[in-house]
Amino acid sequence: MSKLRFTISMSLDGYVAGPDQSEENPLGVGGEGLHEWAFVTAAFNEMHGRSGGEVNESSAVIESRIENIGATLMGRNMFGGGPGPWGDDPWTGWWGDEPPFRMPVFVLTHHAREPLEMRGGTTFHFVTDGIEAALTQAREAAGGQDVALGGGADVARQYLSARLVDEVEISLVPLLLGSGASLFDGVGDLRLEQVRAVEAPGVTHLKYRVAR
Amino acid sequence: MSKLRFTISMSLDGYVAGPDQSEENPLGVGGEGLHEWAFVTAAFNEMHGRSGGEVNESSAVIESRIENIGATLMGRNMFGGGPGPWGDDPWTGWWGDEPPFRMPVFVLTHHAREPLEMRGGTTFHFVTDGIEAALTQAREAAGGQDVALGGGADVARQYLSARLVDEVEISLVPLLLGSGASLFDGVGDLRLEQVRAVEAPGVTHLKYRVAR
Repeated sequence: MSKLRFTISMSLDGYVAGPDQSEENPLGVGGEGLHEWAFVTAAFNEMHGRSGGEVNESSAVIESRIENIGATLMGRNMFGGGPGPWGDDPWTGWWGDEPPFRMPVFVLTHHAREPLEMRGGTTFHFVTDGIEAALTQAREAAGGQDVALGGGADVARQYLSARLVDEVEISLVPLLLGSGASLFDGVGDLRLEQVRAVEAPGVTHLKYRVAR
Repeated sequence: MSKLRFTISMSLDGYVAGPDQSEENPLGVGGEGLHEWAFVTAAFNEMHGRSGGEVNESSAVIESRIENIGATLMGRNMFGGGPGPWGDDPWTGWWGDEPPFRMPVFVLTHHAREPLEMRGGTTFHFVTDGIEAALTQAREAAGGQDVALGGGADVARQYLSARLVDEVEISLVPLLLGSGASLFDGVGDLRLEQVRAVEAPGVTHLKYRVAR
């Protein structure tokens, strides 16, 4: 059965973005610090078409996250370009001409838009009829493989609350953001079983299975 | 230099006790679940004068927590007995005649009381002049060894906010309590460095050093 696998970096106090998120500062104040452990790795650089970087305990974790993934789901905020209609010269994502996904990506939005085919195998599909429809479409596109759920916090909380997520992987960073986008706020009593924990420089990668 | 070492169990959504804490239910609704990983271990049983239980990856962690500890600090709520004056037949703690501490324990309270000597080496001292005075007294009693800081969340937050804690060890439990006593709420931008992570059944033990 194709699983929905959710992966995110979280601060020790439970935030996946800092306060005052904006178009200029999509991760909020201090939110960049959630991803520093990844930025220094060779695995991350390679995925983004760059060379160099460290090989450490995070490397295998990063690689495992794209194994058997056939499609990706994300919210409009993670795709970016601000809220509201797309306009005449629409935003094409944060990732340049050749995004690192290399698979179909389904973007949840209130504003319809034609699919956007990028270089390197990524096509963005814009879904306006809700999280269940987006998951169905992503599962079809994944052709039996799993579906990855990215952020932001808002979309992740919707999928978690609807009990549609099968696996949760949290990269827990020793950072206190104090406020911002709280991952689990209002999600309810999701039953999680610990699958594994991996200690890596500046982060611990925690994987949980959602019990049914 | 004698360190102040803080150890606590926390839910994945950041709570160290569930909602609706009361005298009957000091850990709040669902809060018992934070400690199940410990209750099943032989190390925990032994510390509480019982036999039996599992030896697993948590065992060495539990044992390491009392290594080089010469005194313990805790809040009135963790000692128990409800708020207000002690009364004529005062509460002597949750732990029976022979508490597992076997060292001087300093209880922060607004209500003065004579020291209470228990069996097995535990003496409770009641400190009414604040967290710094309590730490000074505990350090003296520890005679060069480290001081352990227990809960509750309120006292822990006071020590964290005052930047008096040197090490934080969190046993992170895959439980969502939804509300309750949030450990890091209002603590500010404490700078933490990850020391180690230990995967164990139903819990991950995370240790951090507080950077100065």
